[in-house]
Amino acid sequence: MTALADRVLAGDVRAAARLMRLIDDAQPEAEAALRELWPRTGRAQIVGITGNPGAGKSTLVDRLVALLRARGKTVGVLAVDPTSPFTGGAILGDRIRMQDHALDTGVFIRSMATRGQLGGLSRATSDCARVLDAMGKEVVLIETVGVGQDEVEICRLAHTTVVVVVPGLGDDIQAIKAGILEVADLFAVNKSDREGADRTVRDLRSMLELNHVVGKDQGGHEIAIVKCVASRGEGIEELWNAIEAHYRWLRGGDGLLARETQRARHELVEVLRERLLRVALDRLAQNGARLDDLALRIARRETDPYSVADEAASFPP
Amino acid sequence: MTALADRVLAGDVRAAARLMRLIDDAQPEAEAALRELWPRTGRAQIVGITGNPGAGKSTLVDRLVALLRARGKTVGVLAVDPTSPFTGGAILGDRIRMQDHALDTGVFIRSMATRGQLGGLSRATSDCARVLDAMGKEVVLIETVGVGQDEVEICRLAHTTVVVVVPGLGDDIQAIKAGILEVADLFAVNKSDREGADRTVRDLRSMLELNHVVGKDQGGHEIAIVKCVASRGEGIEELWNAIEAHYRWLRGGDGLLARETQRARHELVEVLRERLLRVALDRLAQNGARLDDLALRIARRETDPYSVADEAASFPP
Repeated sequence: MTALADRVLAGDVRAAARLMRLIDDAQPEAEAALRELWPRTGRAQIVGITGNPGAGKSTLVDRLVALLRARGKTVGVLAVDPTSPFTGGAILGDRIRMQDHALDTGVFIRSMATRGQLGGLSRATSDCARVLDAMGKEVVLIETVGVGQDEVEICRLAHTTVVVVVPGLGDDIQAIKAGILEVADLFAVNKSDREGADRTVRDLRSMLELNHVVGKDQGGHEIAIVKCVASRGEGIEELWNAIEAHYRWLRGGDGLLARETQRARHELVEVLRERLLRVALDRLAQNGARLDDLALRIARRETDPYSVADEAASFPP
Repeated sequence: MTALADRVLAGDVRAAARLMRLIDDAQPEAEAALRELWPRTGRAQIVGITGNPGAGKSTLVDRLVALLRARGKTVGVLAVDPTSPFTGGAILGDRIRMQDHALDTGVFIRSMATRGQLGGLSRATSDCARVLDAMGKEVVLIETVGVGQDEVEICRLAHTTVVVVVPGLGDDIQAIKAGILEVADLFAVNKSDREGADRTVRDLRSMLELNHVVGKDQGGHEIAIVKCVASRGEGIEELWNAIEAHYRWLRGGDGLLARETQRARHELVEVLRERLLRVALDRLAQNGARLDDLALRIARRETDPYSVADEAASFPP
């Protein structure tokens, strides 16, 4: 086993941070370490927290961390920034939050800034969740903005996905209806001291009934709707209890293995896709065809992407 | 040439709609037709319209369509729904809008509902934009919710990307700062009859200055900020003029070829990725290894994604 994987398994924070940077940069060392860590993963409880900007997800996550720490559980947090694939985005959130938990070695918090990773954000987040799992974190919270397809993909990684909404959804209800409903294992109505909280709960309830939603796996766990006020710490315990109830239900039946298999399938396809692409691009380069030159020829209509792909796919390995 | 490609080139609306459905479903006929159409594409002006939900993008797009039609230009619209990869989402928008332009054969409007396409939303949108291009639409408007990474990817397809914001951004300014800024070729401040419109313009201006933004390609086209009230049709002409000015600037230098090359590169990688994956999964299946079985074995920690990928990548083609 490599020294890096070894140190991650021992819970070494600096080794975990280093491995995550290697994952961001899609370095070969990352894959080597992840491969070694694989058999030692699958123990963490993974919870997704998603919702529109302004729903108060970060505060909610901070409160959950405090609750879990008070209960003696070790926690990892991955905060997925809705930032550009170009810059890497702000890591401000980290710095602010790290202050609360800076001296607590039972918590590991990290921003996943999207940097146009070759494998995409969902792949990098999945890999980083594995690292937290391997280093022994009992609960991994993945916080993500729930609008784009990539964010929805990230929810698939979780055992339990909490969709955070606020009273007075207005225009947002359409977006929630359309996209987020099917990934929700439970709803948190945050800022529920605001006017209209009860109406939001009713609206969600009737939306679930209208859509005959009976849980992601159709197995029949009722989707809970929990009211909370994260800024004041209200309803956090109830929320965690609902998350635990869902997780217990998953573990009680085939649900957990079904989700793990779905996730494994997703990861396998992602790994395979990148591996094959890398091999093919290398082969093209060995045959004197650089990607940039090919792109220019395609842009000039001298060839097309399909013909180039034919050629690349027909090279022997 | 296939009959389908032939009919698309002749501007046949039903053929174009059929090809787009084949693209959605990743059918082999779609690739065959797209390959034939490739040399006949690259003529349309592609404009991306992005921004948060509630920014009034749809109304703005409708107004732009009306303006372009009044100027005698043919138009294609792709509306990318922020919907789930699971259901395919609502096509409501289509139906409402089609009424306005239903009798106008110079307009083609389509919702891109994400259905977990093998190649992803950005690939399907790109392909559908090619179809509109090939059928002779002079302007293609791509409307997308600008939060997730996939939506940002879609902006890369456009020659000019318009980011729509509304006065009183509040929490949203962080998201805009972080993610959308770098894809913006110009800003539309919609609903600018609302209080705070001038402040929003100033905020955007100073944000651009702070970030030393000089246009996506660093070539130095100043990013315009245009105020409008789409619901009343105000500022639409100014907005289109700014879009045209940016496009003229692109055409005047290397900008257009640079963007087309970037886009071709992106498409080549996407086509290649899917082609190789399909070939590898077929080979695995021929060797008796079904994807679902492999996923289950990985979930049970009997193997790992990397070892399976090694095996799949080493098969001869």
